[in-house]
Amino acid sequence: MTSTTVPSQLEQFSIAITAGLNRLDLHKQTPIGLYEPASYLMNLGGKRMRPALVLAAYALFKDNFEAALPQALAVELFHNFTLAHDDIMDDAPYRRGKATIHTKWNLNTGILSGDLIMIKAYDELIKCPTNQLAEILKVFNQTAIDVCEGQQLDVDFETSNEVSIEDYLKMISLKTAALLDGSLKIGATRADASAAEIALIGDFGMNLGIAFQLQDDILDAYGDPKRFGKQVGGDIMANKKTYLLLTALQLANTEQLNALHELLNQSINPEEKVEKTLSVFNAIGVKEHALNAMNSYYKKAENALALVDVDEARKATLYSILNSLRVRDI
Amino acid sequence: MTSTTVPSQLEQFSIAITAGLNRLDLHKQTPIGLYEPASYLMNLGGKRMRPALVLAAYALFKDNFEAALPQALAVELFHNFTLAHDDIMDDAPYRRGKATIHTKWNLNTGILSGDLIMIKAYDELIKCPTNQLAEILKVFNQTAIDVCEGQQLDVDFETSNEVSIEDYLKMISLKTAALLDGSLKIGATRADASAAEIALIGDFGMNLGIAFQLQDDILDAYGDPKRFGKQVGGDIMANKKTYLLLTALQLANTEQLNALHELLNQSINPEEKVEKTLSVFNAIGVKEHALNAMNSYYKKAENALALVDVDEARKATLYSILNSLRVRDI
Repeated sequence: MTSTTVPSQLEQFSIAITAGLNRLDLHKQTPIGLYEPASYLMNLGGKRMRPALVLAAYALFKDNFEAALPQALAVELFHNFTLAHDDIMDDAPYRRGKATIHTKWNLNTGILSGDLIMIKAYDELIKCPTNQLAEILKVFNQTAIDVCEGQQLDVDFETSNEVSIEDYLKMISLKTAALLDGSLKIGATRADASAAEIALIGDFGMNLGIAFQLQDDILDAYGDPKRFGKQVGGDIMANKKTYLLLTALQLANTEQLNALHELLNQSINPEEKVEKTLSVFNAIGVKEHALNAMNSYYKKAENALALVDVDEARKATLYSILNSLRVRDI
Repeated sequence: MTSTTVPSQLEQFSIAITAGLNRLDLHKQTPIGLYEPASYLMNLGGKRMRPALVLAAYALFKDNFEAALPQALAVELFHNFTLAHDDIMDDAPYRRGKATIHTKWNLNTGILSGDLIMIKAYDELIKCPTNQLAEILKVFNQTAIDVCEGQQLDVDFETSNEVSIEDYLKMISLKTAALLDGSLKIGATRADASAAEIALIGDFGMNLGIAFQLQDDILDAYGDPKRFGKQVGGDIMANKKTYLLLTALQLANTEQLNALHELLNQSINPEEKVEKTLSVFNAIGVKEHALNAMNSYYKKAENALALVDVDEARKATLYSILNSLRVRDI
């Protein structure tokens, strides 16, 4: 006799999402120059957080979560479309430790396979009852436009010297949090939730997404190099206008401001740059400010979820997603 | 007293399409780094053939053609999305005599503004009665996938030595004709036409699109330089595998085949290359073969339209579109 354990709901979602992505059969379609790179990207893995949010939002209200699987696949496809094109825009050689499409193949393949993945997202999205279609498309289109606008703001900020913390929060709301917001709203819409419940679950996603991005900013500067999975200090080396840097610039005294501007403008050894910048950040207390902001958004997310009018037991998976993100080492 | 003339139906379509595109107000939205290039491309002009086909297909069956205007705008937006990305892939400096987006701005802007235009296409597309939404999206998604596949085949053919005339016809069916087919089907679907009528009007578009592309191939080699608007012989200079070249390769005798391979592989003065290639084409009778093929597709288009079961008077605009394309100087 072997002991068996019942998979958690989150594990069930993960199994269904993996099976659903496999059923897309992208690798079997022609022309292979178009479909093989699309299949490659979709199979690089990742947390599959966005499709899990679609299913979790659905499961708040109804039991047969597989009904929302096409919409879950749609948001994962959309997310990967943005990765294919963002990797070109950032000239990123690697994605999840593997070569990006435009590196492994070429620029044109990165563009066109990305476009295909986007259309495939719509193709999955529309697999739903006719009476839900208009609302789901409305949410999805607005989300997609938000993500494009957020990406543009991110690009604009690279060359602007007048980015406020408020501007930054708006940018990450659009670029990162909107897709979490949209994923949850789509899942709830598929489950015929009321407009009020859909708004609350969207709030949960928006605040979760902002908290998640602030945490990424903090981890980039203060994460354990062994556990973070990226080069610690990468944002500082690249002069990236993160929540940390913008907070530092806002709170610095004259001496600290001069030191920061010098570090931003002079070319010095990257490790020395990171060390000296962190020392200014620490003198200002930037990490604590960022942690406070992050925690307030996680709290807002919790509050929104608490207000959703369903049994607390049904919320367990969404709370566990929130907590698993929150405990990432800082 | 001034004399006034009633605008033709095609002129009415054109006025409505221009007004509809203006109402999108892309130039008024922010971030301007995203919307200004999108607005710029959408305002470069062009024949607006695809949206006119949507309205004409609708007008076959119903009178208030403005009802299909959002779907007409959707196909024009989609077409421009493909132009933004194709221009990057072809590294084209000009579009309609003006700088392409990626030339006037940069690569990233070409990609991201193209993506935005694509999403805006869906945003217009869904402005229709709920009961038509699923069918319209199904047709649109399939069309969009076809266009991506056609673009990939076109790229693949550049480096393949085994392209048959059949392969070529499949490629242009997908890359060019599918969007005409889709535009007409969407217009007819908006007008609640029967499945049989929708299939016929789609056939009209598919054959019209193939004829149109064959005519482009012929004009590129044999057009009047003053009237064609592009450099005559451009395809020959670029070794492009057009219907003409593929026909020549298929019908050439050994001597002609050797001459063609020599012209394809050696680097000679472009004007001399065009002249010598045309001389082989003429010896083989390539132009006549291509004209015959083109005419047979125009004829198939006419036949499909003839079978649509509505008053002949309602078909006048679609016949006039067909004829205006057909009489382009050869």
